[in-house]
Order: sequence, then structure tokens, then C-alpha cells
Amino acid sequence: MRSGRRALLHLLKNRDTLLASLLSELKNVHDHLVECRLCGNFDTANPCHICTDPKRESKTICIVEDVGDLWAMERTSAFRGHFHALGGTLSAIQGRGPDDLRIAPLIERLESQPVEEIILALSATIEGQTTAHYIVEQCRPFNIKMTALAHGVPVGGELDYLDEGTLTTALQARRDF
Amino acid sequence: MRSGRRALLHLLKNRDTLLASLLSELKNVHDHLVECRLCGNFDTANPCHICTDPKRESKTICIVEDVGDLWAMERTSAFRGHFHALGGTLSAIQGRGPDDLRIAPLIERLESQPVEEIILALSATIEGQTTAHYIVEQCRPFNIKMTALAHGVPVGGELDYLDEGTLTTALQARRDF
Repeated sequence: MRSGRRALLHLLKNRDTLLASLLSELKNVHDHLVECRLCGNFDTANPCHICTDPKRESKTICIVEDVGDLWAMERTSAFRGHFHALGGTLSAIQGRGPDDLRIAPLIERLESQPVEEIILALSATIEGQTTAHYIVEQCRPFNIKMTALAHGVPVGGELDYLDEGTLTTALQARRDF
Repeated sequence: MRSGRRALLHLLKNRDTLLASLLSELKNVHDHLVECRLCGNFDTANPCHICTDPKRESKTICIVEDVGDLWAMERTSAFRGHFHALGGTLSAIQGRGPDDLRIAPLIERLESQPVEEIILALSATIEGQTTAHYIVEQCRPFNIKMTALAHGVPVGGELDYLDEGTLTTALQARRDF
């Protein structure tokens, strides 16, 4: 909030230079930004620059809940495949069913794009994991290797501050050292 | 801080009943609490109640940094083996070497107690992982299976809020779904 107010004040003080150019940029975004018809990312091109980048591995699709998660994965620079943003998770409470998510476009994609691995990068919440199970069911006919992000102790995490669920999961999923 | 002040005020208002019994309990703790000579846990018995519990699996030892971490693992109820608290991590910056940790008692334990698996439950920090590698080296002659807690997305964790290191680790350690 505080840094937001500071930024706003800075804009208002320099309204002829900063505010005017912000306005024209926002108008540009408003007029030209589209949702990529393949992955659901926001871009000025459709399909987006990730889907059309020849250097990216099109045989691996990483499924994320939202564009924010797609950007989070992209910030790691550890993933060089394609994405598919669902636009949310299945939620009984919020009344979001399969038709509210981009699951049909995913199935269409799998019918035309040869995919060898689907990585489920969904939140470790009940809704995220419900959605993961549903997608695995939907993708079963395609016989694709399905994987999921590892669950456990976050990097930098100290044991004493972790919840019991995370510790239990990390213990059960322990690996050879 | 605030709840601390409230508790203190409550104690002071009831000093004849509460404060007096707190004093006698603290004196009891002061006089009788000892560090378990096997695992390093605090208890009034030595060896502690975990080390002497016949229902616990003595062939698995979970190595933790500190008694606080031992308690954290114990709260999960997911681990039924023995513990070994090191009393800290190796730290070049803070000048803590192997002799400052309970590593010699660990080696002594391995010489007398038949152990099949050592679980390294150390923090996912640089110091925690340095310590883990050192312990693996020290335990090599015993030919014991060494495992470590899984690293990845914590339970309930939403991708967008995770640091890039955790996401990268979770991606690299992805598992079949």
C-alpha cells in the first residue's frame, strides 16, 4: 500500500511526462494484448512468443493454474517446454467446473501436438490436487507420461517453521542422499 | 509481544497461586532436566523416553539440527524411529566446526546400535546441506542407507508465492503422477 501511494504521488507530480506515457502504454496493452489461443498466456502475438519459439521443447507441456503461475515458472529459467494455463482450479465451493477451465483446449492441443510429458505444476492445495487428478483422467487416452512438481521442504526452509503436513510429506517422499 | 505481556500480567495478578507453582515447576525443570546422552533431546530421564520406548523403531535414526526440530518432527506423528540432534549446523561464518556438533556421539551410537537407515532432516539452507554432506561422509564406513527429506513445494503452497529456487528444485525432482 505504502509503496503504491508513493508510486502514485510520483506519477501525479510528473503527470505531463510519466502519466501521459503510462496512459499511451496502457492503451496499447488494452488494444493489442490477447490471450494465446494455445497456452492461455497474455501476449501481443497469437499464438504467443513461447508457443512459437522454435528453441522451446514442444513435446513437454507444463500445466499451470494461471498466467501468474506461468510467469513464476518462466522466472526460474529451469523449464524450456510449452505451457498450458487452465485459468483456475476446479472448485466445488466457488462453483468452478471443468467447463470453466481451459481443459477442452488442452485436449484439442494433445490431438494435434505430439506430447511426451505433461508436468502438473498446480498448487499443493486441495483444489490444485483435485484439478490435477481430473486432468490425469482426461489425458489417460493419450498415454502420455504425467509428472507433478515435487512436494516437500521449500529451499531455505527451516524445519521448525514448517507445518506438519509439509514435514510429513517431505518425510514420506524422502530420497536417497 | 502482546500476548507475552498479557500472560505476564495474568501471572502477576495471581502471583500467590500461579506464579508460585510456575516457580516450583521451573525449579523442577532446572534441577532435573538433562540432555539425553544418546539423541540430545531434553528429558528428565537419561536416555530419554524416545530412546527407551520399545515401540519405536531403533533401526532408523532421523538426524535433526536442534531439539526444536526434533519436536517439530515429533509433532507430525509420522516418524516412529529414533532421533539424533546435532546441536546446530556446520557454519564457516559462525565458526562452528564438527567438534562443536554432536557428531562424535552419532558415530559412537552407530558402532553399538544396529541402524539400517539414516534420515537427514536438516534445513534446506546452505549450512544445513553442508552439514548433511559432511555427515554422509562420516557415516560412509558403516554402509547405512542415507536418505533426506524431499525438497519441493510446501503443502498448501501456491506457485506464484514461491521463490525460484524452490520451483526449480520442485521441477527437477518431479515425480510420476
